[in-house]
Amino acid sequence: MPMITVDMCAGRTDEQKKALVRQLTDVFLETCGGDRSGVWIVLRDVTTDNWAIGGRLQSDTDPS
Amino acid sequence: MPMITVDMCAGRTDEQKKALVRQLTDVFLETCGGDRSGVWIVLRDVTTDNWAIGGRLQSDTDPS
Amino acid sequence: MPMITVDMCAGRTDEQKKALVRQLTDVFLETCGGDRSGVWIVLRDVTTDNWAIGGRLQSDTDPS
Amino acid sequence: MPMITVDMCAGRTDEQKKALVRQLTDVFLETCGGDRSGVWIVLRDVTTDNWAIGGRLQSDTDPS
Amino acid sequence: MPMITVDMCAGRTDEQKKALVRQLTDVFLETCGGDRSGVWIVLRDVTTDNWAIGGRLQSDTDPS
Amino acid sequence: MPMITVDMCAGRTDEQKKALVRQLTDVFLETCGGDRSGVWIVLRDVTTDNWAIGGRLQSDTDPS
Repeated sequence: MPMITVDMCAGRTDEQKKALVRQLTDVFLETCGGDRSGVWIVLRDVTTDNWAIGGRLQSDTDPS
Repeated sequence: MPMITVDMCAGRTDEQKKALVRQLTDVFLETCGGDRSGVWIVLRDVTTDNWAIGGRLQSDTDPS
Repeated sequence: MPMITVDMCAGRTDEQKKALVRQLTDVFLETCGGDRSGVWIVLRDVTTDNWAIGGRLQSDTDPS
Repeated sequence: MPMITVDMCAGRTDEQKKALVRQLTDVFLETCGGDRSGVWIVLRDVTTDNWAIGGRLQSDTDPS
Repeated sequence: MPMITVDMCAGRTDEQKKALVRQLTDVFLETCGGDRSGVWIVLRDVTTDNWAIGGRLQSDTDPS
Repeated sequence: MPMITVDMCAGRTDEQKKALVRQLTDVFLETCGGDRSGVWIVLRDVTTDNWAIGGRLQSDTDPS
């Protein structure tokens, strides 16, 4: 019954995503219990022009 | 004043989306009250390679 | 397979919440199809000191 | 340590996004304090066929 | 740089939460790479009167 | 028409929250335009036992 959402940088391969969701699910069940089918995960691919850290977009390569 | 977010599988038609948001809004107002203009809805089209149930991406067709 | 999230003002009764989730689910299935057990809804009770419209918290009663 | 998410209409320019994230970060630090590098922002470009107000998609131009 | 959010049933112990966040972080780094300090996780404790599956609140014990 | 969500550490005063939402709204309008009444903000107070950075809850004071 958990819903896990992962906002992450776009560009992961299908193999990475497959491994990620399988292992996130394993970890949830091992630590918190529950049914495997009750673990939902949504991945969100965020592009670098939509993600800022410290007030600066990740796509921003201007020297400052 | 509610904000309703719907993460759903990509691929719904415009007609389905129009009917969905109209009726979700009707239901909220009938059960909880409020102004029609105060109901906001955001739909998110999630592709099958970004949605996992039970540790497996919906796009994953490998036999296992 | 949809995940519906409703951010709404705190204070709804249990009866309102029961009716809300039942009818939101009905509407989703009627317009988009799918299995009833595959519709998940999370309600979030937001207090008026955590919700702003037009730059003003809903709890803010100062004349301005 | 805040995570700020902005769901907004698609179509803003890179310059608007750059200015937006810089100034949102400034405002957070001025009012709440903390380290600049600890402010994360995710922008979500929502298309008009995925945003409804008052039960009507923003892309819906049917007279009603 | 991922932001992981976990909506889960309220009631997990501190020890479960500690183990959960440590292992979710491990899994992300093993499958996708990145810096450990760049993995943020927010846990949301959802009460059973705010979570519905199949149109029914988890707190709803009425026979139907 | 933006929806801005701020997940932040619990503990800010009402005065901080009032200033925060007013100024976030100002910044959005200055950089992206739109109507003041169309800017919605939800603040989420996250406790330190629900926020992890680098695999460690912020409430976790164990030496490691």
